[in-house]
Amino acid sequence: MIVQKYGGSSVATPEKIRGVARKIRDRVEQGRKVIVVVSAMGKTTNSLIALAGEIAADPPPREMDMLLATGEQVSSALLAMALCDLKVPAVSCNAFQLGMVTTGGYTNARIMDLNLERVERLMAERSVLVVTGFQGVTPDGDVTTLGRGGSDTSAVAIAAKCGCSCEIYSDVAGIFTCDPNRCSGARKLEYITYDEMLELSSLGAKVLHSRAVEIAKKYSVELYCGSTFSDERGTYVVHSLPEWLEQPVVTGVTTDNNQIRVTISRMPSAMEAMGALFRALADKGVNVDMISTVMENGHSHLTFTVVDAKEQVALQTVRASLAPWTDWSVSEDTKVTKVSAVGVGMKSAPGVAARFFSALARQGIPMLGTTTSEIKISALVPQERGDEALRALVDEFGLGE
Amino acid sequence: MIVQKYGGSSVATPEKIRGVARKIRDRVEQGRKVIVVVSAMGKTTNSLIALAGEIAADPPPREMDMLLATGEQVSSALLAMALCDLKVPAVSCNAFQLGMVTTGGYTNARIMDLNLERVERLMAERSVLVVTGFQGVTPDGDVTTLGRGGSDTSAVAIAAKCGCSCEIYSDVAGIFTCDPNRCSGARKLEYITYDEMLELSSLGAKVLHSRAVEIAKKYSVELYCGSTFSDERGTYVVHSLPEWLEQPVVTGVTTDNNQIRVTISRMPSAMEAMGALFRALADKGVNVDMISTVMENGHSHLTFTVVDAKEQVALQTVRASLAPWTDWSVSEDTKVTKVSAVGVGMKSAPGVAARFFSALARQGIPMLGTTTSEIKISALVPQERGDEALRALVDEFGLGE
Repeated sequence: MIVQKYGGSSVATPEKIRGVARKIRDRVEQGRKVIVVVSAMGKTTNSLIALAGEIAADPPPREMDMLLATGEQVSSALLAMALCDLKVPAVSCNAFQLGMVTTGGYTNARIMDLNLERVERLMAERSVLVVTGFQGVTPDGDVTTLGRGGSDTSAVAIAAKCGCSCEIYSDVAGIFTCDPNRCSGARKLEYITYDEMLELSSLGAKVLHSRAVEIAKKYSVELYCGSTFSDERGTYVVHSLPEWLEQPVVTGVTTDNNQIRVTISRMPSAMEAMGALFRALADKGVNVDMISTVMENGHSHLTFTVVDAKEQVALQTVRASLAPWTDWSVSEDTKVTKVSAVGVGMKSAPGVAARFFSALARQGIPMLGTTTSEIKISALVPQERGDEALRALVDEFGLGE
Repeated sequence: MIVQKYGGSSVATPEKIRGVARKIRDRVEQGRKVIVVVSAMGKTTNSLIALAGEIAADPPPREMDMLLATGEQVSSALLAMALCDLKVPAVSCNAFQLGMVTTGGYTNARIMDLNLERVERLMAERSVLVVTGFQGVTPDGDVTTLGRGGSDTSAVAIAAKCGCSCEIYSDVAGIFTCDPNRCSGARKLEYITYDEMLELSSLGAKVLHSRAVEIAKKYSVELYCGSTFSDERGTYVVHSLPEWLEQPVVTGVTTDNNQIRVTISRMPSAMEAMGALFRALADKGVNVDMISTVMENGHSHLTFTVVDAKEQVALQTVRASLAPWTDWSVSEDTKVTKVSAVGVGMKSAPGVAARFFSALARQGIPMLGTTTSEIKISALVPQERGDEALRALVDEFGLGE
């Protein structure tokens, strides 16, 4: 048994769907049973979101999920048809049928369980089960979705439950040292560790959904990322690199443009203010990143970043939660990019941060904020200099060809 | 409590969906709880069928239903959003959530039961439940669809179960003496009996799905057909006309162009041949109509009609089932139209058939076959003369304005 996941661009047209079916058939002919997880065709999800926007300014999240879940049901039915047309015994299956139970957090639900018995029953006389990615149902039977990129999570969760390996196919041939679309000479990695992949995914690399990597790590799911459209070798995501492979100091660099920097000038000094602010943001589901504070002239200024989709919520929440205090002001800066370098090798190599900062400084790129972890360094830079910063880091850490 | 059903043209665009939501709100403001059954938006179902055609020549019916059922899930979610946007507490619900259990006859399933408890739970704190029409699930959890026009059946079945009345809204303002698009001067009926409506629906009038009428009759569901886009009074479908209303001899006339006439020349005279043929057709789900046989020169010729979608299946089945015999041949004639006149009043008015046949004969329209029942007369005419035949009958039976 093996789980394969095909992304939206892999099933964007009837012709591509038939191509994916042939790829799956090859695997079946090697004697494998395959559970295939599919995303919605091409830009379907975006079109459905636009359609909802024409109906209501603020559609209820429950109905949004009911709407969006149809995209994967379409692609899974079509892929099952394409497989049957190739005489491969296949059947499609949605979240209800799979018993893919999630929390009730509409639009961003988390998988709690799935019904292995039903998987086995559906696959008993068949070679392929085509499962709708991205969706689940609450214990009460409401439709949920797992958030953008959630099909990766569906696939890895099924692989974890079935105790088999998982292959993620997309239009990118694997994991690269940096985004090949933004950075010429990006190098494909043969292996990357779960921890590094987790950082890269969280930091904006779009190849794998970070929750999928978390689950893969937790349940030691063998993970492979490759291209739908070619047979070239992709990247394995593993606990640790094979011993014969030298661990580089920095494995990859990535940028994230979807960041808004929020600055609160003259932050109220009352202890409760800071607590009230971050508690209110958490309550509204706003993830806060890159928090830093500076003292200046006896005043404390606070900055942090949030993803741009949360800009309005974040600003409203700041204003509401700090309303009991006076004299402060809030501003946002929409033109920032977060550049990050990730590598397990950092742990044992001193001076990586110095090299990172110097590389940017040499190009005269201002750093608007920084954060570091054991295996990651991030800096906020002006958005128009993001590509330049990426290039400087690729050169500094020898990530090009 | 009331059930309302809105057809595909009523929810074809976001603007129309918002219009339907306002219409429902008006009802809610009158103190009603409303269960709304929706079809897929506009031509969605046709687009999905075309998409499947690009994937496989003969897609498995199970996957076809999985695919088509998405259309109603989209429109029901959007309508629930539009209602919430108007501050009407509403929620959408699909066949899984409703427990709309059907037989396993994919693409043409029949409703067996629905879970009233879930309806009550979903509506407990809300005014409107928006239900996906046209679809169900088998007891095993496979998605099914109810055949073209199946949303009418969904609506009437829910009304029957809930013991309330049912309003069917479309772009036509009620039931007419003949199709207003084909026949100028068609008159709208204030009332029509279930029996007449049943005949008209079966004979090609597209306002109501015939199975919906069957269920309405069986459970005495008060049925009303009206226009989505205007408030003009529509048509009530009832057991018998109000006493003060004189029952016309003929209530309506209709045509059906989707007919193929199959002719078997020199039909084998063996008794088994006829039985084998019609049993085989029934096994393949081909409904046979307008059967007639003629003797000529000691040979028996058999003709019958089938709906055009079944043309290939019907011909293959004829050839296979008559293979044990020789000397016969089969041909089909795709250019025939069935014109029918329907009226409960026929039962008590002698000479209606004579008037029907004379009206066509006076225009020199050849009749290629006829059938009659207690309340209906049908004739097969060359397709190019269908409109002319309709006109002749409208004039003969005084159905125009």
